[in-house]
Amino acid sequence: MMYLELDGQGPRYAQLTRGLKQAILSGRVAAHSRLPATRVLARDLDLSRNTVLAAYEQLAAEGFIEGRVGSGCYVAAIGAMQAPQAAKTLPRSGAARVPLSRRGERIRELWDRRIPGREHIGLRYNLQYGMPMTNPQLASAWRRELAHAAAHAQTDYPEPQGLLALREQICDYLARRRGILAAPDDVLIVSGAQQAFTLAAELLLDEGDRVLLEDPHYQGERQIMQASGAEIVGCRVDENGIVTADLPTQGRTKLALVTPSHQFPSGAVLSLSRRMELLAWAAKTGCWIIEDDYDGEFRYDARPLAALKSLDRDSRVLYFGTFSKVLFPSLRLGYIVLPPSLRDSFIGAKWLTDRGCPAIEQAALARLMADGAFERHLRAAAKSLKARRATLLAALRKYAGDEVEVADSSAGMHVLAWLTRLKPTQARQLVSRASERGLGLYLIAPYFLKSSARPGLLLGFADLPAADLQAAMRILGECLREM
Amino acid sequence: MMYLELDGQGPRYAQLTRGLKQAILSGRVAAHSRLPATRVLARDLDLSRNTVLAAYEQLAAEGFIEGRVGSGCYVAAIGAMQAPQAAKTLPRSGAARVPLSRRGERIRELWDRRIPGREHIGLRYNLQYGMPMTNPQLASAWRRELAHAAAHAQTDYPEPQGLLALREQICDYLARRRGILAAPDDVLIVSGAQQAFTLAAELLLDEGDRVLLEDPHYQGERQIMQASGAEIVGCRVDENGIVTADLPTQGRTKLALVTPSHQFPSGAVLSLSRRMELLAWAAKTGCWIIEDDYDGEFRYDARPLAALKSLDRDSRVLYFGTFSKVLFPSLRLGYIVLPPSLRDSFIGAKWLTDRGCPAIEQAALARLMADGAFERHLRAAAKSLKARRATLLAALRKYAGDEVEVADSSAGMHVLAWLTRLKPTQARQLVSRASERGLGLYLIAPYFLKSSARPGLLLGFADLPAADLQAAMRILGECLREM
Repeated sequence: MMYLELDGQGPRYAQLTRGLKQAILSGRVAAHSRLPATRVLARDLDLSRNTVLAAYEQLAAEGFIEGRVGSGCYVAAIGAMQAPQAAKTLPRSGAARVPLSRRGERIRELWDRRIPGREHIGLRYNLQYGMPMTNPQLASAWRRELAHAAAHAQTDYPEPQGLLALREQICDYLARRRGILAAPDDVLIVSGAQQAFTLAAELLLDEGDRVLLEDPHYQGERQIMQASGAEIVGCRVDENGIVTADLPTQGRTKLALVTPSHQFPSGAVLSLSRRMELLAWAAKTGCWIIEDDYDGEFRYDARPLAALKSLDRDSRVLYFGTFSKVLFPSLRLGYIVLPPSLRDSFIGAKWLTDRGCPAIEQAALARLMADGAFERHLRAAAKSLKARRATLLAALRKYAGDEVEVADSSAGMHVLAWLTRLKPTQARQLVSRASERGLGLYLIAPYFLKSSARPGLLLGFADLPAADLQAAMRILGECLREM
Repeated sequence: MMYLELDGQGPRYAQLTRGLKQAILSGRVAAHSRLPATRVLARDLDLSRNTVLAAYEQLAAEGFIEGRVGSGCYVAAIGAMQAPQAAKTLPRSGAARVPLSRRGERIRELWDRRIPGREHIGLRYNLQYGMPMTNPQLASAWRRELAHAAAHAQTDYPEPQGLLALREQICDYLARRRGILAAPDDVLIVSGAQQAFTLAAELLLDEGDRVLLEDPHYQGERQIMQASGAEIVGCRVDENGIVTADLPTQGRTKLALVTPSHQFPSGAVLSLSRRMELLAWAAKTGCWIIEDDYDGEFRYDARPLAALKSLDRDSRVLYFGTFSKVLFPSLRLGYIVLPPSLRDSFIGAKWLTDRGCPAIEQAALARLMADGAFERHLRAAAKSLKARRATLLAALRKYAGDEVEVADSSAGMHVLAWLTRLKPTQARQLVSRASERGLGLYLIAPYFLKSSARPGLLLGFADLPAADLQAAMRILGECLREM
């Protein structure tokens, strides 16, 4: 009698097929041996005869057995082709470090060393930056547009450059709100800013090329540059943004990544004179500039400042916009406004990488922008953010006024609070202590190329109501006083 | 009086702001000069005074002018920072060939030399492969799931590996239909097969590494390998699939790309003995195998054959599945079943590249699979494809029987018809001639590494009703007879 253990996954005939294959492949059932009659096997395994028949037919179709199902089936000479071997018990984790490409090795290391995405997610008050804003109005508008787009969007491969209707809306928006005059032809739709950085690194950087980052900066962009094998240099940031006097004058810098509207994470706004100096430096040295305008929309004391790109007469600036911050992160849509000389190469890279972004979301977003709901949402969000920011700052002053120095820029979705009294090790203790009381705090240290001597907290406030912000600052103040 | 031309884009105040900025930046309005009073400029330009006030305020906020708006404003010393220069008239096309990275140069060339995506799209009968199947039932089921997902899916950053519920459904499907036993942990959700190839090239290939392609093969995968700078070698294909006797034994092949279930585009099904030989070769030489199972679901004379991956005892096979073919291309979702040793690196690469696929489509697809609608659609699609294929073959025999030799494999969404009598130049004439009569034909030549001596046609039939297929074959027959 044939011994077979079924694995219990899926229909019986499929389980039996797999079991018989394994028996054949392992050599337990020898080549040329006759299989039991379907009736016999059905009885032995307590299966219906039809189940056994179906399995035998499948095995015959795939060449595992020969002969006529129902009269006499013989095992094909398969097992002999490959010596039976013990099933390898490979560890499921990355412990088995198979060799990868140079880029692959760098990516594996970056993944291994990553900071967990949502570390304090379970805490009562989580001041993590970049949490999506809860917004029922937006959610219902988005649902409506998505349903409409699902009924009308094309099903064929998308345009690699992105849906024209969406690119038109983006140009219109950029002209009105960010001072950028761009044609739909200059715009490439990408899967979030992360993909924008990836495409730029791929097209502009060879291993060993020099990339300039603001210091501090967004980790995600640094990781992409590290993966490309570029040489990374940092440039100091002060209260007027990146210190242009420190820009390297020796050697060639291929690419510089800046956040002029609202330096991430320090919050500084780049002064006009430095904007001009940065552009002049780029034109002179032939460096490309990436302007990451991740939250330039949210400025509370005046209209949003015009983007660096609007001053870009030498076509050295790639402007990156994202909808993750202003709408929600799971959307995965962003865009690049490209200089004419890079346009085709970026479209080509997007086409090669993934053929283009999904069509339905693009169509839904284009309609959301066209009917005004997008900007209504922006205005409402700005109003809510402004109020939350004021609450946070007032509570911070009240509960921890003498312990922190706030880098104030009247913009964005987070506030940077330098800790005036604590040493870096104490700052880490502060985070643990706060966590025990249900408060999620985030240090600025990981955003520096080398850990900054001065400890600070990045306080994200976008998704917390006023009462929570006050409670959070009260806990922060208590923790600080206890140290 | 100040000369200013407004560009007509967006609100008036924004136009005026831009116009004034340009005047300041170009040096036409000198540094330290006094701007006209708002009342005066409003009269000169026929604007409301509030419009001018708004523009001046914006310019002051951005640092272009100094002083008190309403009393006296002076131009800041900006123009002096950058010498005025003539606006460059850069060509908008790729003609300005700025230097890119080595990879960038290869991508630009691939994009320049690409075959237009949908060349015969306007023709009455278009036999292009990969056109989406029109399916109102599926469309309405998809709309329903999408609306549900939009109301319930998370808004936060997606899981880089992909939604667990979707990975579970894929594992269940693979066990039942493709003979693959995989755990959700082994599955990575990607933006279509194109991204799967991109990630594999990035992680496994350095410049100069050898990649083996079936010859003929899918162009998209070749282009990605070319972009990576790999050395590409072809391996012959006959009626039993890739000729394993021709696999290279000298030197190291890093990666081999195969389509065992239905060789693309020849249609051959890889025999079981060759499957075993291919796996043995991979284990012996340390080569990774990509099994691209782009349409393995559609097999008409029997159940779908089990995938190569189901025989993969040495964990050398990366199984690529896509929903572009079975659902619709604009969805941009696919998956990889990974060997344990590559799992973390691929998740890391996906995370680094774009953080993960959009959440809503993943949730909708998981539900479509869970409630059985996905497989009902597959069964209906297979039935429809089988009938269309039979119609196409019958009409081809009737109208062009003596002119073609059909490579028949009873599977897939296309048929390969070798042209027995025509030379390659004549085959190209045949395509032009057919196009003039409203018939879109596609040669197999571009799918070979080097143009094949033997001309053939790739006849995609998925989206054409029976009457159209008959009409198309009639035209093909007429064109052939006239040559």
